[in-house]
Amino acid sequence: MDFQKKITKLQKEINKRLEIFFEKKIKETRSISLLMSQMTKEISDQMTKEINNFVLRGGKRIRPILAYYGYFAAGGKGKKAILDAAISIEIIHNYLLIHDDIIDKDEFRRGKPTIHQKYKKIYQRTSKEAEHLGISAGIVAGDLCSSFGYEILTKSKFPDSLKVKALDKLNRIITEVGGGEVLDVFWGIKHKLSRDEIFKILEYKTARYTIEGPLHLGAILAGADKKILKKLSDYAIPLGIAFQIQDDILGMFGDEKKLGKPIGSDLREGKQTLLIFKARRSANRRQRKIIDRALGNLNLTKNQLEKVREIVIKTGSLNFARNLAKKLVSQSKIAIKKSNFPSEVKGFLTELADFIIEREK
Amino acid sequence: MDFQKKITKLQKEINKRLEIFFEKKIKETRSISLLMSQMTKEISDQMTKEINNFVLRGGKRIRPILAYYGYFAAGGKGKKAILDAAISIEIIHNYLLIHDDIIDKDEFRRGKPTIHQKYKKIYQRTSKEAEHLGISAGIVAGDLCSSFGYEILTKSKFPDSLKVKALDKLNRIITEVGGGEVLDVFWGIKHKLSRDEIFKILEYKTARYTIEGPLHLGAILAGADKKILKKLSDYAIPLGIAFQIQDDILGMFGDEKKLGKPIGSDLREGKQTLLIFKARRSANRRQRKIIDRALGNLNLTKNQLEKVREIVIKTGSLNFARNLAKKLVSQSKIAIKKSNFPSEVKGFLTELADFIIEREK
Repeated sequence: MDFQKKITKLQKEINKRLEIFFEKKIKETRSISLLMSQMTKEISDQMTKEINNFVLRGGKRIRPILAYYGYFAAGGKGKKAILDAAISIEIIHNYLLIHDDIIDKDEFRRGKPTIHQKYKKIYQRTSKEAEHLGISAGIVAGDLCSSFGYEILTKSKFPDSLKVKALDKLNRIITEVGGGEVLDVFWGIKHKLSRDEIFKILEYKTARYTIEGPLHLGAILAGADKKILKKLSDYAIPLGIAFQIQDDILGMFGDEKKLGKPIGSDLREGKQTLLIFKARRSANRRQRKIIDRALGNLNLTKNQLEKVREIVIKTGSLNFARNLAKKLVSQSKIAIKKSNFPSEVKGFLTELADFIIEREK
Repeated sequence: MDFQKKITKLQKEINKRLEIFFEKKIKETRSISLLMSQMTKEISDQMTKEINNFVLRGGKRIRPILAYYGYFAAGGKGKKAILDAAISIEIIHNYLLIHDDIIDKDEFRRGKPTIHQKYKKIYQRTSKEAEHLGISAGIVAGDLCSSFGYEILTKSKFPDSLKVKALDKLNRIITEVGGGEVLDVFWGIKHKLSRDEIFKILEYKTARYTIEGPLHLGAILAGADKKILKKLSDYAIPLGIAFQIQDDILGMFGDEKKLGKPIGSDLREGKQTLLIFKARRSANRRQRKIIDRALGNLNLTKNQLEKVREIVIKTGSLNFARNLAKKLVSQSKIAIKKSNFPSEVKGFLTELADFIIEREK
């Protein structure tokens, strides 16, 4: 089977499991609120359904796919249990997205309204407090999603000793990305970041969270030792950094429709990506002024965005980022080549590495 | 040792453990951000310290105390491991408080600013976005607190099989109270609740969350079977309802300084407590109008509050609530008497039941 077919098949299997989980949850919410009035029942029901719609409206499912292959890299057997457990990391990811969307004031995610935005709209007709009700509903939805994620892993069909280790890992993933979130919150009032800081954020916010964490989670459920985890990290960290660099590139030069979010959001939110860092450093005074006026400018115009894009190209920053991503991806592939993972796993992870810098969304 | 001394001693032991945990966490945050700039280090550091201050500035520690006695009720041995694990439920409680404070727009908790309010003040001098930064910081602080709570239980010194069961219980506690939170969010736009609904909320929002959940959590860590859990529920549910009724009474007639929050908050926020429900039902037309004007009125005056208090007394609602709480407490005590828990546990839980309706904060 070719790579794209493999990915599509896995995505389908993961989505199926997510659907089943939410169906079960919606039934449970109903039974909890059985003795409550029709109205309160509808409210609880609606919340679980909104989370369900949010999670199932799209997403690359990169994290559960990595957990799945991490499991087989470490010699795990049978795919049912690992697929069931792997959706925990996807749901945890959605919990963090829901909260992040509130923090970043994002109105769209995967082409549709974010949760807090959806609720704001629902209550706009009946309440002056719609804005606050939206945020409140988003907080609660994220919190519910969080306990759903823990629940799935806790109830998965693995030996208790492995589940405890995996839960510990899941916690560490969340705490570390929480550290990244802390930085994001105060992004707006920050100083200019240094090169080292930008790479540290790339490592913690993306490489560990998106690639290494899920791979380790799966591997731990197969009983992986430190040596295997180390080998997975050798693959994951460079790939994760490349993944984020590609994300930054797409966020600035990608196709709005494919991405499901507006181009230039990072710039508007004042995020100091590697792309912007490098462009600023190679820019002349006039160009630097244009960048600085655009960075964090919530009213960024199309014209301003276009000018920043030109500068990113002219200064060589775009090429620099593309080449760096390529270099990192080859590092990852070398790490895989040197490993003694099963050949099917080696094949998939190698193709995944290429896919990550070739993707358009 | 008399009851008050026992409580005080346990509270001290719990606080000590909370302090040790946060000291460790602050060190960990520092090492994660070791390669970051001084400023980002300070931000992460500050967040953990703010959570630490919030958790340690007070609180009755009723939940970890109940987990502790639940453990011994189920025949658990040795107090070190259970005390270490019991703080998980306190930290989870604080996670939910931090988020609830945002939702309810509460500015004070235990006599000091809530987390989102504290951050709002910090950034008011430097940012126009202080309000949003405050809320964002509160969301992140709650999220971090949540993973701290799971971490403590996951790393506690119990057999993996019991930890998995306890983690499952912890999850259910959070999901159920999440359901309660959902109702709270939409409280403002709700219909008048029925008597059954009020009791259902009393059961789910307080009895299960505050009393039964923690008792079960401790008992599960001692390997309790269903029979023991059932006996603990027979004690917990009536006591939990009594606990909330007493909370409602204190919220309306208590001492502001002892409570650490303004009297009448529930009324201002439009919460339909049993006290208000009963008063409305026995009120004449004029009295009912006064109540309805006060309920959910964010600009409630002292005079209005005083009038509602008079109505709650005159209609017999205060006496009704007090008597009901007493009746429920005796039910709890009978359940304990019938149990075969160790005599020390029976003694403590019986005294605790009395304490819960006699407390002033």
